[in-house]
Amino acid sequence: MAANANQVFIAVIGAGGVGKCFLSQLQSLAARRPSPKLTLCYLATSRKALFNDDYSAVNMDNALDSLSASSRTPPPLPQVIEYLAAAPAKTILVDNTSSQDVADHYPLALSRGVSVVTPNKKGFSGSYQLWQEIFIASSTSGAKVYHESSVGAGLPVISTLKDLVDTGDKVTKIEGVFSGTMSFLFNSFAPTEGQGGRWSDEVKKAKSLGYTEPDPRDDLNGLDVARKLTILARLAGLPVESPTSFPVQSLIPSQLESCTSGDEFLEKLPEFDDQMEETKTAAEKAGKVVRFVGSIDVASKSVKVGLEQFDRSHPIAALKGSDNIISFYTERYGNNPLIVQGAGAGGDVTAMGVTADLLKVISQLS
Amino acid sequence: MAANANQVFIAVIGAGGVGKCFLSQLQSLAARRPSPKLTLCYLATSRKALFNDDYSAVNMDNALDSLSASSRTPPPLPQVIEYLAAAPAKTILVDNTSSQDVADHYPLALSRGVSVVTPNKKGFSGSYQLWQEIFIASSTSGAKVYHESSVGAGLPVISTLKDLVDTGDKVTKIEGVFSGTMSFLFNSFAPTEGQGGRWSDEVKKAKSLGYTEPDPRDDLNGLDVARKLTILARLAGLPVESPTSFPVQSLIPSQLESCTSGDEFLEKLPEFDDQMEETKTAAEKAGKVVRFVGSIDVASKSVKVGLEQFDRSHPIAALKGSDNIISFYTERYGNNPLIVQGAGAGGDVTAMGVTADLLKVISQLS
Repeated sequence: MAANANQVFIAVIGAGGVGKCFLSQLQSLAARRPSPKLTLCYLATSRKALFNDDYSAVNMDNALDSLSASSRTPPPLPQVIEYLAAAPAKTILVDNTSSQDVADHYPLALSRGVSVVTPNKKGFSGSYQLWQEIFIASSTSGAKVYHESSVGAGLPVISTLKDLVDTGDKVTKIEGVFSGTMSFLFNSFAPTEGQGGRWSDEVKKAKSLGYTEPDPRDDLNGLDVARKLTILARLAGLPVESPTSFPVQSLIPSQLESCTSGDEFLEKLPEFDDQMEETKTAAEKAGKVVRFVGSIDVASKSVKVGLEQFDRSHPIAALKGSDNIISFYTERYGNNPLIVQGAGAGGDVTAMGVTADLLKVISQLS
Repeated sequence: MAANANQVFIAVIGAGGVGKCFLSQLQSLAARRPSPKLTLCYLATSRKALFNDDYSAVNMDNALDSLSASSRTPPPLPQVIEYLAAAPAKTILVDNTSSQDVADHYPLALSRGVSVVTPNKKGFSGSYQLWQEIFIASSTSGAKVYHESSVGAGLPVISTLKDLVDTGDKVTKIEGVFSGTMSFLFNSFAPTEGQGGRWSDEVKKAKSLGYTEPDPRDDLNGLDVARKLTILARLAGLPVESPTSFPVQSLIPSQLESCTSGDEFLEKLPEFDDQMEETKTAAEKAGKVVRFVGSIDVASKSVKVGLEQFDRSHPIAALKGSDNIISFYTERYGNNPLIVQGAGAGGDVTAMGVTADLLKVISQLS
């Protein structure tokens, strides 16, 4: 088949919470867009795959059912990328996993002309070498790479930072609340009005409401926020080596680091409530509240993640629910930063960032 | 000359506050971007023009001086558009004026394959027919039209709204403070803490600090905000006929509508301070502050602009300086809106939105 400029092939890896929402948005999009025609040519999880060797379309309408029923296992990623690179139209790989292995293959995909769209943080927050390989491969081949939802889900965070930098503004500082889980926890534990609950109770409540990872330690260790800060710092021009190369405060008490399960951790957590209570009281005495924030100071090249105190009227203190808030201080914006705020987690809003990125790539390919 | 895919021609109309900042950003951009090569092929104000019939480049480094020294007057716009359409590379017209006449020519430019980038509100907030002609011409010819800075200067307002709509979210309500002037006036007149000054004094102070139009009535009549609301409502799917087709509260006392000059208006304004003082006091009695806001309720198709009361802790009340704030309520974001906040006026940040749009068009043309 000859390459068809009026068609774009989409390959999707991952069918979890975000993946399912994305497939539903893709289906609506394909129905709405007569041109270019969007063809789903590959859909896979880590265990199953759905594709046709002759590149005929996978039916989007029942793709998840067909995937469940499929007897094909996913080929090794280099083989998947060759399949996509040889497709008879421009191809976009949508990585809806949080897999390091998939991220490690972005340079190969990009160098073979396959564009990449993803909410997966791993490719952009792991080693600095991988980051460089990704963007060198993209600029050499012309294939695009977009990852808006890797920070703040569908909020316009990465696109805004890129616009600031690309138009010649100087970003001086970025600070904010980058985790929906941490936002929810601290808005409940140390509210601007009223008392708030015991720390371990709030963690259990957040888990039962689905606001934490299955193992809440994956939120409390601060690594998720550190990964997001790494991405933003690099975009702002700091060659941060990895998310462990700057100070990150973990909220896992050192005595509980050896717990073998999340359940054991949650069981023992109440023994350490006094520590967090002290932190809260110290802030209260200063007329403030405590929040878990990340900040990047570009001039001093310092990146850090952890607890800080804020005035009750500060936008970071006044945040609601599980909202994120990100403030960009720049030369042009002066003392009053450019602020983006809203839900920074959730399947639909994360998928929205992926779909919006997909549309941007399509507009550049077709 | 054959069309050159590795070159993009830029034509700029307008060299006022925003225009000057844009030219400076364009110059830096052109120096940084080896490919595609950005060539300034036309620069004009309403009185002077600078261009070469053989399309050889206008030197960006001293373009404003050369324009001042130029003896050429600008040709009629249809002729300028023919000149651009016949250029030996893809061409982008940057309209940095606030001229209705230039805006009226967007459909012609777009239909001839010339893309348009502009902070000028007139094309998108005037008659609904012009709006339709602009977007039909763009979709027919494939030429692009971007106008981020027409609302909230460089803040990501229009791009965010487009992403929400394009990815299938349902926008239910948009509300906010859309005027830097009104923001400054009310943050000073009715601050969340302290007393604030007399209304007429605050208007005079804002004028002397350069926060108002040369004639402050152009801000106080609410039309600027009404134009921005018209743009956003249309993007959200409401076919608003014009900025005068919905309720807009003017802060010009009816007795002063007949003033023949801004100076006469400012001289007589103190006589009406009691009216504004009453408005402020009424809000204070309810424990609130008064702000000048715009809102779009999509379900009821209602758009309005005027004074409203807000709790002191509301983000709209807590705004600082001349900042704008825009809240998008959508199906996906639920009760906690997606919020964008920051400077919504100023040469550099407005030009930034224009330059960012230019980069988006370039990425799609080249």
